[in-house]
Amino acid sequence: MSLLPFIEQVDGFSYDANDMYKLMSHDGKTALGYLTSYIAKFFEKELGITVNHDSNTVKIDANYDTLSKRDELFRGIAEKWKLMDVFELDLKHGWRDELYTVYSPTSTPYMHIERAFSVLIGVITYGVHINGYVSDGETLKMWIPRRSPTKPTYPGMLDNMVAGGLGYPYGIWETVVKECLEEAGLNQQFVESHTKSTGVMLYMYRPDNQTIDRVQPEVEYIFDIKFPDELVKPYPVDGEAEDFQLMEIKEVLQRLRNGEFKPNCGLVVVDFLIRHGVITPANEPNYLEIVSRCHRRLPFPTL
Amino acid sequence: MSLLPFIEQVDGFSYDANDMYKLMSHDGKTALGYLTSYIAKFFEKELGITVNHDSNTVKIDANYDTLSKRDELFRGIAEKWKLMDVFELDLKHGWRDELYTVYSPTSTPYMHIERAFSVLIGVITYGVHINGYVSDGETLKMWIPRRSPTKPTYPGMLDNMVAGGLGYPYGIWETVVKECLEEAGLNQQFVESHTKSTGVMLYMYRPDNQTIDRVQPEVEYIFDIKFPDELVKPYPVDGEAEDFQLMEIKEVLQRLRNGEFKPNCGLVVVDFLIRHGVITPANEPNYLEIVSRCHRRLPFPTL
Repeated sequence: MSLLPFIEQVDGFSYDANDMYKLMSHDGKTALGYLTSYIAKFFEKELGITVNHDSNTVKIDANYDTLSKRDELFRGIAEKWKLMDVFELDLKHGWRDELYTVYSPTSTPYMHIERAFSVLIGVITYGVHINGYVSDGETLKMWIPRRSPTKPTYPGMLDNMVAGGLGYPYGIWETVVKECLEEAGLNQQFVESHTKSTGVMLYMYRPDNQTIDRVQPEVEYIFDIKFPDELVKPYPVDGEAEDFQLMEIKEVLQRLRNGEFKPNCGLVVVDFLIRHGVITPANEPNYLEIVSRCHRRLPFPTL
Repeated sequence: MSLLPFIEQVDGFSYDANDMYKLMSHDGKTALGYLTSYIAKFFEKELGITVNHDSNTVKIDANYDTLSKRDELFRGIAEKWKLMDVFELDLKHGWRDELYTVYSPTSTPYMHIERAFSVLIGVITYGVHINGYVSDGETLKMWIPRRSPTKPTYPGMLDNMVAGGLGYPYGIWETVVKECLEEAGLNQQFVESHTKSTGVMLYMYRPDNQTIDRVQPEVEYIFDIKFPDELVKPYPVDGEAEDFQLMEIKEVLQRLRNGEFKPNCGLVVVDFLIRHGVITPANEPNYLEIVSRCHRRLPFPTL
């Protein structure tokens, strides 16, 4: 049984983006994100934004020529939409009071926007995902948490050991250290001496079980923590995880195929199992498509 | 100093393929490869092939409806072109008497063609690249061979420990075992117990130092062999490698930046160093572009 359906669930956005509106920078030079026509039409009522239905663009007006002006513009729109019934589930319910950074072509910050709002306008969001594993050279086991039943998204599903978004003003490594402590009780010294950067996954998510059709390009920096033995254990701290289980790879694969993982976290596990020689060209018929689709080249400027 | 220029050297084909001709299957349904207009025009003189300059296609005629008929068709063309002055360097000089398989959309063989001919018609070629390394958990060293000064391509440059094309009728794993023995003197038992499948690289090469402009989409299956200690050593057998050196990572990186590696082998080293935490988002400014461009989604059916 191929794992391709799980990849299609996450990288669900067509390689042909003809039906999408582009969010354009104030100078008209750079596409920053994709919006569905449904969301694009709400921008018609916003000052500072011009929607063009011929060119399928939602453009920031030319006078928003500084970072702080753009931050202010989108803060106003996000606060307003938060109160609208139509965005209640996505925006009011999902509101995080956390800012995400959108980057310019020179990889400098172009604007900062509320995390819950970012997913509506199809800009790239960034995060870190950290696999925890134990290996004696023969057997390989992974630390797998179950998400709290009270989480607003994917309650009770399996997850990566630690994961978190890159909220302003935290950098990649700061986020790794912060989230490892907050979510799994792993202190900075342990994290610094056991964590290895092992890659990055890029894909375009198009959720199909949400109220509002939208596209979400994601960059997830991947890290592996190799635990020295089974005695050192992650444990729930902030309540994001209900518990952590040390699973043999056979069980991880079975639960993956059962659809028990939060979809993008399942993909991170697939990448881990590919790098560690468990999923191979010999046992996965769609190996090439899986690898290339989770390292997709995104059509917008990045960090 | 970013490693991006080395990636651009290998994945040198634009994401916009508007200037290329497509090699189309006999039923007209499937694009199998890209040809430059320069090469496309030579097919005008070939029976069994129809060139269309409006649709930019080089189509196999409808009556070539079996694998063996197509093998025969392209065997004839390759043999004929081998004798033409214009293809002397690429085809006569590079002739291998080795068949490469082109795949149909169902991943079954569509046709077999001479290895040296395959690169002229822009079909996907497949290979295995095998990194050899030693690690005590603290330091990491790689086994790096120097190519023989008598090799027709890239003589004297640095290479991956073992690499080889997937010639018909050998499978991926068979090729790993065969090449490890032939190129590095590693016996089957050692290879079977120390080799891990760790991923695949996909890119579109457009050589800029050749006589004929062409595009070469490549799939390279990646394997890592972790040597138990520094006493077990690879050694030259068939003369492809001049010698093998065990290099510290610092030296590998320096030689990579100096341009001493055969370009696509340098890219395999970059992937190894990304997976092993040496090249990270913190020290490589073009990390995202490098990772996505060496896992490119190819526009043709694959194995």
